[in-house]
Amino acid sequence: MTIGVCYFPEHWPRERWERDVDQMASAGLEYVRMGEFSWGRIEPERGQFGFEWLDEAIELIGDRGMEVVLCTPTATPPKWLVDERPEILQEDLDGTMREFGSRRHYCFNSAAYREETDRIVTRMAERYADNPHVAGWQLDNEYGCHGTVRCYCDDCANAFREWLGDRYDDIGALNEKWGTTFWSQQYGDFEAIDPPGPTPDEHHPSRLLEYYRFASDSVVEYNRLQAEILRDIDDDWFLTHNFMGHFPTLDAYDVADDLDLVSWDSYPTGFVQDRRSDDPTVAELRAGDPDQIGLDHDIYRGALDRPFWVMEQQPGDINWPPHAPQPADGAMRLWAHHAVAHGGDAVMYFRWRRCQEGQEQYHAGLRKQGGSPDRGYADASAAAEELFDLDPVDAPVALLHSYENLWATNIQPHSPDFDYWNHSGTYYRALRRRGVQVDAVPPERSLDQYAAVVAPALYLLDDALAARLEEYVESGGQLLVGARSGEKDPHNKLVDAQPGPLADLVGATVDQHESLPEQVPTRVTFDGEEYDFRTWAEWLDADDATIRGRYASGPGDQQPAIVDAERGEGRVAYCGVWPERELADAVVGEVLDRAGVASHPPLPDGVRIAERDGHVWVTNFSDSPVSVDAPTDATWVIGDANVEAFDVGVVTGSVGDVTVTQR
Amino acid sequence: MTIGVCYFPEHWPRERWERDVDQMASAGLEYVRMGEFSWGRIEPERGQFGFEWLDEAIELIGDRGMEVVLCTPTATPPKWLVDERPEILQEDLDGTMREFGSRRHYCFNSAAYREETDRIVTRMAERYADNPHVAGWQLDNEYGCHGTVRCYCDDCANAFREWLGDRYDDIGALNEKWGTTFWSQQYGDFEAIDPPGPTPDEHHPSRLLEYYRFASDSVVEYNRLQAEILRDIDDDWFLTHNFMGHFPTLDAYDVADDLDLVSWDSYPTGFVQDRRSDDPTVAELRAGDPDQIGLDHDIYRGALDRPFWVMEQQPGDINWPPHAPQPADGAMRLWAHHAVAHGGDAVMYFRWRRCQEGQEQYHAGLRKQGGSPDRGYADASAAAEELFDLDPVDAPVALLHSYENLWATNIQPHSPDFDYWNHSGTYYRALRRRGVQVDAVPPERSLDQYAAVVAPALYLLDDALAARLEEYVESGGQLLVGARSGEKDPHNKLVDAQPGPLADLVGATVDQHESLPEQVPTRVTFDGEEYDFRTWAEWLDADDATIRGRYASGPGDQQPAIVDAERGEGRVAYCGVWPERELADAVVGEVLDRAGVASHPPLPDGVRIAERDGHVWVTNFSDSPVSVDAPTDATWVIGDANVEAFDVGVVTGSVGDVTVTQR
Amino acid sequence: MTIGVCYFPEHWPRERWERDVDQMASAGLEYVRMGEFSWGRIEPERGQFGFEWLDEAIELIGDRGMEVVLCTPTATPPKWLVDERPEILQEDLDGTMREFGSRRHYCFNSAAYREETDRIVTRMAERYADNPHVAGWQLDNEYGCHGTVRCYCDDCANAFREWLGDRYDDIGALNEKWGTTFWSQQYGDFEAIDPPGPTPDEHHPSRLLEYYRFASDSVVEYNRLQAEILRDIDDDWFLTHNFMGHFPTLDAYDVADDLDLVSWDSYPTGFVQDRRSDDPTVAELRAGDPDQIGLDHDIYRGALDRPFWVMEQQPGDINWPPHAPQPADGAMRLWAHHAVAHGGDAVMYFRWRRCQEGQEQYHAGLRKQGGSPDRGYADASAAAEELFDLDPVDAPVALLHSYENLWATNIQPHSPDFDYWNHSGTYYRALRRRGVQVDAVPPERSLDQYAAVVAPALYLLDDALAARLEEYVESGGQLLVGARSGEKDPHNKLVDAQPGPLADLVGATVDQHESLPEQVPTRVTFDGEEYDFRTWAEWLDADDATIRGRYASGPGDQQPAIVDAERGEGRVAYCGVWPERELADAVVGEVLDRAGVASHPPLPDGVRIAERDGHVWVTNFSDSPVSVDAPTDATWVIGDANVEAFDVGVVTGSVGDVTVTQR
Ligand SMILES: [Mg+2]
Ligand SMILES: [Mg+2]
Ligand SMILES: [Mg+2]
Ligand SMILES: [Zn+2]
Ligand SMILES: [Zn+2]
Ligand SMILES: [Zn+2]
Repeated sequence: MTIGVCYFPEHWPRERWERDVDQMASAGLEYVRMGEFSWGRIEPERGQFGFEWLDEAIELIGDRGMEVVLCTPTATPPKWLVDERPEILQEDLDGTMREFGSRRHYCFNSAAYREETDRIVTRMAERYADNPHVAGWQLDNEYGCHGTVRCYCDDCANAFREWLGDRYDDIGALNEKWGTTFWSQQYGDFEAIDPPGPTPDEHHPSRLLEYYRFASDSVVEYNRLQAEILRDIDDDWFLTHNFMGHFPTLDAYDVADDLDLVSWDSYPTGFVQDRRSDDPTVAELRAGDPDQIGLDHDIYRGALDRPFWVMEQQPGDINWPPHAPQPADGAMRLWAHHAVAHGGDAVMYFRWRRCQEGQEQYHAGLRKQGGSPDRGYADASAAAEELFDLDPVDAPVALLHSYENLWATNIQPHSPDFDYWNHSGTYYRALRRRGVQVDAVPPERSLDQYAAVVAPALYLLDDALAARLEEYVESGGQLLVGARSGEKDPHNKLVDAQPGPLADLVGATVDQHESLPEQVPTRVTFDGEEYDFRTWAEWLDADDATIRGRYASGPGDQQPAIVDAERGEGRVAYCGVWPERELADAVVGEVLDRAGVASHPPLPDGVRIAERDGHVWVTNFSDSPVSVDAPTDATWVIGDANVEAFDVGVVTGSVGDVTVTQR
Repeated sequence: MTIGVCYFPEHWPRERWERDVDQMASAGLEYVRMGEFSWGRIEPERGQFGFEWLDEAIELIGDRGMEVVLCTPTATPPKWLVDERPEILQEDLDGTMREFGSRRHYCFNSAAYREETDRIVTRMAERYADNPHVAGWQLDNEYGCHGTVRCYCDDCANAFREWLGDRYDDIGALNEKWGTTFWSQQYGDFEAIDPPGPTPDEHHPSRLLEYYRFASDSVVEYNRLQAEILRDIDDDWFLTHNFMGHFPTLDAYDVADDLDLVSWDSYPTGFVQDRRSDDPTVAELRAGDPDQIGLDHDIYRGALDRPFWVMEQQPGDINWPPHAPQPADGAMRLWAHHAVAHGGDAVMYFRWRRCQEGQEQYHAGLRKQGGSPDRGYADASAAAEELFDLDPVDAPVALLHSYENLWATNIQPHSPDFDYWNHSGTYYRALRRRGVQVDAVPPERSLDQYAAVVAPALYLLDDALAARLEEYVESGGQLLVGARSGEKDPHNKLVDAQPGPLADLVGATVDQHESLPEQVPTRVTFDGEEYDFRTWAEWLDADDATIRGRYASGPGDQQPAIVDAERGEGRVAYCGVWPERELADAVVGEVLDRAGVASHPPLPDGVRIAERDGHVWVTNFSDSPVSVDAPTDATWVIGDANVEAFDVGVVTGSVGDVTVTQR
Repeated sequence: MTIGVCYFPEHWPRERWERDVDQMASAGLEYVRMGEFSWGRIEPERGQFGFEWLDEAIELIGDRGMEVVLCTPTATPPKWLVDERPEILQEDLDGTMREFGSRRHYCFNSAAYREETDRIVTRMAERYADNPHVAGWQLDNEYGCHGTVRCYCDDCANAFREWLGDRYDDIGALNEKWGTTFWSQQYGDFEAIDPPGPTPDEHHPSRLLEYYRFASDSVVEYNRLQAEILRDIDDDWFLTHNFMGHFPTLDAYDVADDLDLVSWDSYPTGFVQDRRSDDPTVAELRAGDPDQIGLDHDIYRGALDRPFWVMEQQPGDINWPPHAPQPADGAMRLWAHHAVAHGGDAVMYFRWRRCQEGQEQYHAGLRKQGGSPDRGYADASAAAEELFDLDPVDAPVALLHSYENLWATNIQPHSPDFDYWNHSGTYYRALRRRGVQVDAVPPERSLDQYAAVVAPALYLLDDALAARLEEYVESGGQLLVGARSGEKDPHNKLVDAQPGPLADLVGATVDQHESLPEQVPTRVTFDGEEYDFRTWAEWLDADDATIRGRYASGPGDQQPAIVDAERGEGRVAYCGVWPERELADAVVGEVLDRAGVASHPPLPDGVRIAERDGHVWVTNFSDSPVSVDAPTDATWVIGDANVEAFDVGVVTGSVGDVTVTQR
């Protein structure tokens, strides 16, 4: 377990570098990431390369026993390149060019840019192939940030047509599978299909979903191009990419298939402000929402089923969210431990020093621009000292997470409030309130290892997946299926009756559904108790399933809402509503109990426990202290049984052994 | 009175058609609408026509004694046509092309598209000219939906110049009538006038109004082109178009002049969500707002002063509003009866079966996609069985409704809250709370037949209209004129003193006006009682009118606000504020009483009564039951004196005979 | 002190003019402004000039002893000119042309338009060079209105490159000063720099700030072109321009340098609705916010340190704000006196008569369109009668106001709530609540004459300015520095430690800062009392300064927040938070007391006093009457000791002599 930092030597005079790397070393840092926006410095004019500064920085770092993660600098093609080959620029849906002046202005399908990428990546890789201090590479930086996964340029139009041609036997098959008879949307050939531009009314959902898949695949292909060059030149170094939190347009699992290590960029006080539907509490403004961060940890750990890195960890206040609250004292240390508890192996703070120029002014570092320690420096040093080596997380539960389902439900949400992340987050939070480790994995993943599987909105379904889920249940699995599962086939067409190929397994079908605004009271029973639900309701027709809950409001009053059924050695439950917290606790709790998964009664808000390699982390994101009751023979490796606000404790044992109470 | 359905045989395999039409027939349906988006199926490539499927579908329907309403398929030109003749596409105000991929992407002024229209309509009409099962035609589909009345392409620019040339003697007359001296907006010739594109500040209101008129006229002309072709080929069939609810950019009265029958598309649970300024109640989410629907019924009945059709009636939950609530049990039957009570002759549910492909997935039908009955099926069958033949509605009151006034007040609303529909709706609701039938007719219409006329905001006024209103009052009419009447001349120029040519009739002029945000208390008296008003206030100078109400707040305190005057046999009242509900009840009630119109004391929310051909409909859109007190010799034709929530009762007699009370 | 009016004879038939000017004269008006949108009338076709109407109007006005302010008509190039030379049009950031049809559609950098400007201005100036009735010129009209300061056309792109070339030694210097190493934003030469167009992420803040400076300078240069022509032809007349209220994109001080007189356009009931962040009270809707208007008076008086004019004074209800409330009775008179109290020499009502055509219909005048007196006519006449001659205002306090700081904080506000105008307004209001006159001047201005200087957010700072402030304090000045001072150097790069070159003077540096949303409680102490603050907090490291206040909430609890220090003869205070009203009163009050500035205890809301030339104005913008306690030998020049709601009283004496209390 390791702490590192992101460093931009090119922003600072050469004479400050020694002091910088000395301070890094004495803070206990082990990795330094560099170079991700440095093309303009590396190649100020075409063919005029200047790597000396980078050689030197690497050398200084290596000298102090630290290792370097280098980055390909492709996220920021310099102005001379844009001027020479303007065709590399992205185009908006309405034809507006995305110009030079910020970052990520290139198109993933630009043949010109792929050539330039090949050229610069090859050059850099060759330069550092034999460098003993370069441990690995980050390919590009935050693919798709600022809405750049989907481009509407001519290169993309042509690539889209080819991509479609590869996936359909002929244009007739496409017309059939999309259902283009609707509104006379038939295509005579693949050439007739454009990217989905500005139209009077909304687009055909099948066309849109395919464009979203294509756009994500374009990034995958572009990333693979870089990976192949780097592996060809040296296969010792690891390849990674830094993904983003709750990022909506790119299938991270697909990109990860070409990587050795998955990393992501975690900014807790920003994410509670800009990617959650409700207002953050004061405690969340100060330290973030552990379940929001935790789900990302678990997605990126799940991507390769391997320990992940936090490639950029918030070091203090940051510049880009609406507001810039100061994190709580200790929050920067808490985040590092929380990442490790979720299976992280390294936490790299972003950035070494506050930047004085350009768009990221006002972003904290571990040191201030003047050189003195910034707010997170002591936290980072403490974490570096406290961390110890651990085996990977072994999660008993899988949460099925699917980018295609995210895209497809976004295309037809059927309610302004139906957000895929929030809906999945309801189930994820219920699992984490029990202190249970969760792998967030794609539906294609083998499920054999899991005692329980939660599938919140398995929207697009084919027979193969249905068969695998059936097999999972028959052989003893506990499966919880959420609302809006099996609504569509993989081409985004409605099935005959929801949940489509899952109907036999579930033992019920959906008679009607509805979505309702917040002001309408929505009540449902489960196991005799009455609960609130929100946003989405399905009236079920139970076939051989047991009715476990019924509506208690509206025209669907008394209609079945929640059912379950024994199948072989296992059991499947179907929850036809989006449960509010208490109902989610009840439904998920029952699944965990039946699966025999050790868990804690629902934990207080902001307090989470997590087990890894024989240790239990108690991470307190709340502003109240808690007491931990652990077995007398347990050892407190970090902290003790009194875990203060925004503090962490680590004790030997397992989740079933400890009890946490608010003081 | 008849029930029908909209059907898309082209979306389903041939082998399902027999079962479909058998089920339609056994549900008691009499009309089937088809073909409105089928161009791509009818003509998959230029000149390759394939009508056999449609021939067959018509035959199957005709065989079971039902009749067909065919549609011209011009709302969705297929991709091959767009690719061949891209000049048919519409252009947005900022020059962005409205591309293929949804519907309504063609420009009404495109010469190319008029050619193509002529070709396809002629071909279809000739094919079905002798078909005994084709009763009539729907021309195109929902003209102007998705903001497509106003286009900014070169064809439109040229057509606008010609249209102006036809309406003005010369460019000097235009400059004079618009008042282009203001801000140096003089034009040297008609060629210098463009569609109103993007400008730093707002446009000249006269230019804008003329563009809105021109755009509406372009649709009228395009519709006439289709009507003439169809009439030339066979003058037995009826011609109709399906208009939309509260639709803002097209003058439905003008289009109707070329039709035999007016129909419209009614989606009550959608319209309460997306075209009303206040949040719907729970009951309204479940069944809609009867006055919102009723005003549309009365506009479309008023258009030709003839029974209308509901060409598309919501059959259950629908896909396009923000939320998709399930309608209340019985709502689908309630809507059919409500339409008939307002003078409808046929109610066609949209659609026969839930669609599995394209943009309208998640829209209910009478049958589900799998074939079983959907939520509205039983309601539709019940309505089909209950309906009986009736004479047209005979309304004692006219509400003057004008698209030009809607456009002009939209151009200069003078308050974010001044919405023409809502302002008119205040008066309409007061009339309907009294159970009075209302013809919503254009100001040009003869008023002789009406005991009372309500003119909410007769914004643009000329001498001729003023003279007609004077004549109406002099010969015994009761006229109620609302605020913002006579502000402008027909070229959208302010008159010397409001209400312009109506000043003599009203006996008062407007001294000052103001608009106020909601948070400012706004009070006014009427007949000694104090009331709330909203949004708009005019301080009146009474000449020979009687002052009936004065302001009771603000700097206009004690200024006259409401006046009336006896003129010949009749009387005119002028209401210088936008009244809140209680004041509207009082003012409108007095007019009805003086006019001797039989009415009910203000009915409870959601409960409405309506008289047609010796019967009184009691339609209960509320979630509470009501009791009806009717004369002992009255007969309950449908239901009885206890009308449950979302239920209907029909009793012989007239509005003056019944009393409704909440239970 | 003088009253005048804006007149558009070209909108009215010739036969009304005599009556108009007779009525102006009998109302006591002395100046009439004309011609600012009359190009289309003056030159209906290229080279066909028609000045006779204007000659005649001037003659009629002069005959009655009034003087004329003529305007160059360049704000509205006519259609024939646009059609001939379309390159004069502005372009939006995304390339959309700003078309003809409203006003201000020309680009300040268009060579073509500068030619045309030269032609029309020369022609007009020559025509009226010898006219005895023309006192001065207004150049153009409201430069930059409707977002037109910043244009993105090719002319602007080229001019921007030249402008940069003039300001930087070479491209290397630019790269260095901007810090273009960040995200590879280096430029190879000036030609490579474009206007900041559409980009995926935000722009480089240094590039953006330079574009904003350049755009403002383009207006300055364009204005100078007109000024030089007019001065060349006749140097007797005065040159002015009518600026706008709280206008964000143009540096009025820079434009003023080429003028003889500064004027501005004051619309109190509009500005409280559309340029303040909180909802107006009912009284403010009726008469405006005296501090919002007052700050503009003081900026435009400060621009040339000379009496200003209100070139357009709201005369009644107006057409362009969201709502159009009627002003309170007397408000139009109150505004005139308030302007004079703040150092105005003339108040010109806009407009003489309500306009019946074009975009400004519904804008009140002094007369109605029909000719009868409009709401403000009596007020204007009363003011004309009451006003008397006065010496200029002598303000003891300067508020440093800087457009560059406004632009730069807009570029990186770091909180959606950080608004430069509102933040400065907090300090300005505290000063005005004390009845103190304030010069709002640019930081470059000599400060010798001021007993106290308030610098709310001196964001961009260089050594020279820091040295001048130090000198000011050392020689006895009282300086109050607000939060966010010295954050950046003049190239918009963060300094090493805030407040940069001011650190020594202040005796403290900023350790950390944060911004917080409204819902988080934010408390701070000052002098032992606890207060609220909002939006922005800086944790200070006090060096040799005295800690006067500390945080009392959040993770910064007990950190220093407010400090001060004695320096030579004077004292500097630094306030690291955005104070709420009570804290602003306390901090500002202390500064005034130490500076020995005579002041009143905090005045009630809406009630303001102001001293000019031995008189004290009591202007009551509230809806409650107040009593004024003045020395027995004081004389009431206007009104008396009872000042009613929306009334004014003027008494001899000075601010320290009177006490105002609410009755
Ligand atoms: Mg995948
Ligand atoms: Mg008409
Ligand atoms: Mg300046
Ligand atoms: Zn592209
Ligand atoms: Zn067009
Ligand atoms: Zn320009």
